[in-house]
Amino acid sequence: MTTVLPPALLTARESVDPALHSAVAQLDPDTRRVCEYHFGWRSVDGAPEGGGGKALRPAMVLLSAQCVRPPGAADQAVAAAAAVELVHNFSLLHDDVMDGDTSRRHRPTAWTVFGRPAALLAGDALLALATEVLLDSSSPHASAAARSLSATTRVLIAGQAADLDFEHRHDVTLDECLRMAHDKTAALLACATSIGALNAGAPQEVVFGLHTFGTELGMAFQLVDDLLGLWGDPEITGKPVLSDLRARKKTVPVVHALNSGTAAGERLRELYAQPEPLTEQQLHEAAEMVQRAGSANWTHRECQRRLAAAGEHLPSGPRDATEALTELAAFVVRRKL
Amino acid sequence: MTTVLPPALLTARESVDPALHSAVAQLDPDTRRVCEYHFGWRSVDGAPEGGGGKALRPAMVLLSAQCVRPPGAADQAVAAAAAVELVHNFSLLHDDVMDGDTSRRHRPTAWTVFGRPAALLAGDALLALATEVLLDSSSPHASAAARSLSATTRVLIAGQAADLDFEHRHDVTLDECLRMAHDKTAALLACATSIGALNAGAPQEVVFGLHTFGTELGMAFQLVDDLLGLWGDPEITGKPVLSDLRARKKTVPVVHALNSGTAAGERLRELYAQPEPLTEQQLHEAAEMVQRAGSANWTHRECQRRLAAAGEHLPSGPRDATEALTELAAFVVRRKL
Repeated sequence: MTTVLPPALLTARESVDPALHSAVAQLDPDTRRVCEYHFGWRSVDGAPEGGGGKALRPAMVLLSAQCVRPPGAADQAVAAAAAVELVHNFSLLHDDVMDGDTSRRHRPTAWTVFGRPAALLAGDALLALATEVLLDSSSPHASAAARSLSATTRVLIAGQAADLDFEHRHDVTLDECLRMAHDKTAALLACATSIGALNAGAPQEVVFGLHTFGTELGMAFQLVDDLLGLWGDPEITGKPVLSDLRARKKTVPVVHALNSGTAAGERLRELYAQPEPLTEQQLHEAAEMVQRAGSANWTHRECQRRLAAAGEHLPSGPRDATEALTELAAFVVRRKL
Repeated sequence: MTTVLPPALLTARESVDPALHSAVAQLDPDTRRVCEYHFGWRSVDGAPEGGGGKALRPAMVLLSAQCVRPPGAADQAVAAAAAVELVHNFSLLHDDVMDGDTSRRHRPTAWTVFGRPAALLAGDALLALATEVLLDSSSPHASAAARSLSATTRVLIAGQAADLDFEHRHDVTLDECLRMAHDKTAALLACATSIGALNAGAPQEVVFGLHTFGTELGMAFQLVDDLLGLWGDPEITGKPVLSDLRARKKTVPVVHALNSGTAAGERLRELYAQPEPLTEQQLHEAAEMVQRAGSANWTHRECQRRLAAAGEHLPSGPRDATEALTELAAFVVRRKL
């Protein structure tokens, strides 16, 4: 399947990469090397690589800034976009260490290459740089933007703490699971879709509308991610099929099934409680149980509902900006990046 | 030996603890529990404890704010003091994980109690809170203060990266080692002794003078720490005697001895290169070699020189503030906290 990327993503990559590069260039050589590898800019040996993710969050920040009229200064929007991307990558670096994940974006994770301490320091450094980059910009609203980003980081941490906690629990409710999805994913998306406007001095109701748009979009985004974790194409996700089940992750469709009161849900609970690793056949059975419990359908519908809710909260603004945000929202849910 | 604590330390503990408590109260329950344990406020079971370190950095921040005339608002100084203490504790939590240290302030380290992921998240949370606390204060200079603190965090990370790097190297120079001591310790002390003034709108030359005062004091502080790591009283340091040698740390006196060109330095190099763990007798021999190479004396003299240099850079200001800073400086070098 060939997918045409929305132009906002390409623009964002081009605008934000120089800011990210110059932020990372301020680090000590050891920490810099880890960050450059993690971002996909360099190979393990330090050779240049094309690298990088799809710049979804930076694109959201730039479009968010364009929702303000008159639009704020471009360099201020870029600083906010870089700051959000730095926080996102801080959380990826640290989560990979905590979760023991060995592969990201089809490459070995940083900690498997440079060791855990170096990957942790690289994450720490990106978090510190995020504040610096934002406050170094000339926006008179940078302080409010930095406060929003720090508060969001706290929510991200709560989400990861809940995720770790869920590993040891068999009684996770759907509400707890949706809260975790909000904290781990939707909170930073909401920050991305509103911080550009905040940093450009938008009225409070515009910032608020954009924040709610991002929250709903973020939930839809996470629900698609959960479905892909069960039935996704490894070529697209970079993860082996059924990997979430293999790790017995308490994702939304799984937790929905476990709490469905159906026979399929009970069978899934038995499989998740089994002390031995699940066999290939059992993994396929577990996925089948999520289907039969009606949880794949429910998750899919909930995802569509959230996407529609996002659209309803999008504040009015310059048409090209709001249309691009809507297009991007539909795109990321259709084909998760 | 009974030591009377300078009053500035007691005042700082009392002023800053409420701000630290309300910052930590914003965290999710799991992360909050780890932080409350780490700060010594609660036992593993959550029972209240008297806890806490000696509030050296907060005291420096508060005195730094008092160097400004007219003095800035007290709540702004307290916010800056809390922010510095949060960054300090972020680095302690993460360093303990990376270094595998099992004991701090006579208690098991947080990661040994709650696991590595929880301790990492707690450190992440404290770093995010530091920015939030500072920017939530009403100071018109909070943004500059937050920028200074983030830049300092980057230097701390460089110091820890160097420290980790030194573990695998046999050719560390004295300059590299002093730079590491600057980055790991002196940089945050310099931030502590200047950020209060910065946040209160002090003229640049006052902030600069206080920063240099803190840098020199921080170096003296680290050199005393290195000497205590070799010959210190475990009752005071909370670490077993000769622990730095046992871990073959490349501290300043050790690296000075290794590069001294003396027979004692060569013998120390042999011991450090030995594949087997050092025996008790060899540990005592290694300490003896540091002495014989003249490196204990050199470190001691360097420490006194740095302390004197600190005093020379202290800007003029309200007498009670500068006298208290001088007293505190002498105290921490005399008996490291």
